[in-house]
Amino acid sequence: MGGRCPLRHKRAGAGAGRSVGSARSPSTAAAMGTGGCCLLLALALLAPRSAVARKCNLQGLWRNELGSNMTLLALDAAGTFSGSYHTAVAATNKQILVSPLQGVLQHSSSKGQPTFGFTVQWQFADSITAFVGQCFVDRRGKETLETTWLVREEVPSRRDSWRATRVGTSIFTRIK
Amino acid sequence: MGGRCPLRHKRAGAGAGRSVGSARSPSTAAAMGTGGCCLLLALALLAPRSAVARKCNLQGLWRNELGSNMTLLALDAAGTFSGSYHTAVAATNKQILVSPLQGVLQHSSSKGQPTFGFTVQWQFADSITAFVGQCFVDRRGKETLETTWLVREEVPSRRDSWRATRVGTSIFTRIK
Amino acid sequence: MGGRCPLRHKRAGAGAGRSVGSARSPSTAAAMGTGGCCLLLALALLAPRSAVARKCNLQGLWRNELGSNMTLLALDAAGTFSGSYHTAVAATNKQILVSPLQGVLQHSSSKGQPTFGFTVQWQFADSITAFVGQCFVDRRGKETLETTWLVREEVPSRRDSWRATRVGTSIFTRIK
Amino acid sequence: MGGRCPLRHKRAGAGAGRSVGSARSPSTAAAMGTGGCCLLLALALLAPRSAVARKCNLQGLWRNELGSNMTLLALDAAGTFSGSYHTAVAATNKQILVSPLQGVLQHSSSKGQPTFGFTVQWQFADSITAFVGQCFVDRRGKETLETTWLVREEVPSRRDSWRATRVGTSIFTRIK
Repeated sequence: MGGRCPLRHKRAGAGAGRSVGSARSPSTAAAMGTGGCCLLLALALLAPRSAVARKCNLQGLWRNELGSNMTLLALDAAGTFSGSYHTAVAATNKQILVSPLQGVLQHSSSKGQPTFGFTVQWQFADSITAFVGQCFVDRRGKETLETTWLVREEVPSRRDSWRATRVGTSIFTRIK
Repeated sequence: MGGRCPLRHKRAGAGAGRSVGSARSPSTAAAMGTGGCCLLLALALLAPRSAVARKCNLQGLWRNELGSNMTLLALDAAGTFSGSYHTAVAATNKQILVSPLQGVLQHSSSKGQPTFGFTVQWQFADSITAFVGQCFVDRRGKETLETTWLVREEVPSRRDSWRATRVGTSIFTRIK
Repeated sequence: MGGRCPLRHKRAGAGAGRSVGSARSPSTAAAMGTGGCCLLLALALLAPRSAVARKCNLQGLWRNELGSNMTLLALDAAGTFSGSYHTAVAATNKQILVSPLQGVLQHSSSKGQPTFGFTVQWQFADSITAFVGQCFVDRRGKETLETTWLVREEVPSRRDSWRATRVGTSIFTRIK
Repeated sequence: MGGRCPLRHKRAGAGAGRSVGSARSPSTAAAMGTGGCCLLLALALLAPRSAVARKCNLQGLWRNELGSNMTLLALDAAGTFSGSYHTAVAATNKQILVSPLQGVLQHSSSKGQPTFGFTVQWQFADSITAFVGQCFVDRRGKETLETTWLVREEVPSRRDSWRATRVGTSIFTRIK
């Protein structure tokens, strides 16, 4: 098999390993690696998948580049979800507390890489953060949340509103 | 009445001057209505109120500078709310549909001008918008929502993620 | 002409009263000043101009909604310009100083409403602001700069970089 | 030397290799590697440097995470600089052309990690991009530009201005 199907088997294996809304089944994928290349190739030809054939699944535990963790709970039929955010950084000196989040997934996506948004109600500050992003799945089934966020601080008056909003980006990968 | 309502009179005075669209202590306001108007008026004149004496109330119908309308429904005890957004503008040519929104108010604010955030799940596009903002009340009780937003479009791959997010600001005033 | 063309003469006057740095058909404007109102009205009706018939000119003195003033000097052939910015607001308590700006106009625009960008090097803070925007001209020749900006503060380390950038919008109108 | 000074020589070498506002002198650093560890250690002890003792130098060739390259030329006394940007990605289908940039460094920084801003005048599109950022130097002298940017597209009218601005972040590392 090796020489005759070198480029395909990893990808096809990962693809075949997907299950219910999830591409996270390393054991299944490994099992596929021992399968026959011809069978895989045949399956791939019969049901050709694009690189984004897998559906990204928001539910789970995620971590970003700063070490902040968030848990996204199960989505309801409308795509709304709740969860909690444990930030690793803060603009205040107060003790960081796990904070609730509310969000929504855009279910209209036909490509399995939907956009989403959520807001975090900080429990240790008078500010609010909103994230928008998109959930991507790579060929190996690894999911990444590419997000952009705004933090709104409370300011004393409309006159100070110009300086109330910070912007940034954050990339989350699945912890479990 | 003065001695029996020492904590309230400043704020209640402000409340009495306002009516429709407010959920701020209607009973107190009603009581004030039967109280001595002259005393209150005198107090109000002698002790001019700061600009932030009144509490901003998110619930209601709001319109922004582009003519987009949104309805924010009653908030629950945790500060979460839902509603609907009817945008006047869109980046697509599809027919605009009223779209649901989910949000949260920052209840920690002691000054009555809280921050908030919400996300809109467009029903006619594959994008998501998130708003953050702050609710301001001026001396006459006029409420204004100063917001900043992000729109995330769906893009085919992570490689295209750089161009997926638009930013802007929007100011809403109460319609009712 | 005055009494017979009350609606028009202000506009023609505005056109004729402007000169340096304007590419808006000065000969036509001059002709308008001496021409007859009826002819003008007829021309206006026969050949209604689009909203973008005039070219927006960056050079001049501008003021935004917060009362900040900026002077944009003459552009060179490549579209680069310098100027000075006198902000009305600051996030620091230091004394505000007029600060230099450097920018560039996008000359490729064929519609007379070009995009531009400039950076301000604050003389009283360790931050930098960058603006991008577009110059619009309405039917009466009134110019407006619609801008979005980022302010970058200096932070001690990369770890703090997430909170270093604020975002906002600003609208400038011409003072002279 | 190796065994006796394992922890120090890399860092000390990089530190000693800095010259006028620059930590990029591989030949000097290499020469240091052959020098005496004791001398280096003595110097390090006599003049302990904080992690940010080195000055970040904008001049040079930089590349970001998308493969876009930019060249920043020498700064003048006021901190202004020019350069060129060769983007690896574009929102249009037109052929990408190297485009000029104009910027400014905030010279007031006392910590050697200054903020800066620059604007890019695209030669193949009617848009303008503005970057703000900060130049960081790590303990080994490696420089990183952490930036946030806005792209302003040309839109037909003020009414469309809301959708004209995209936002994102980009991290550049030195190529030479």
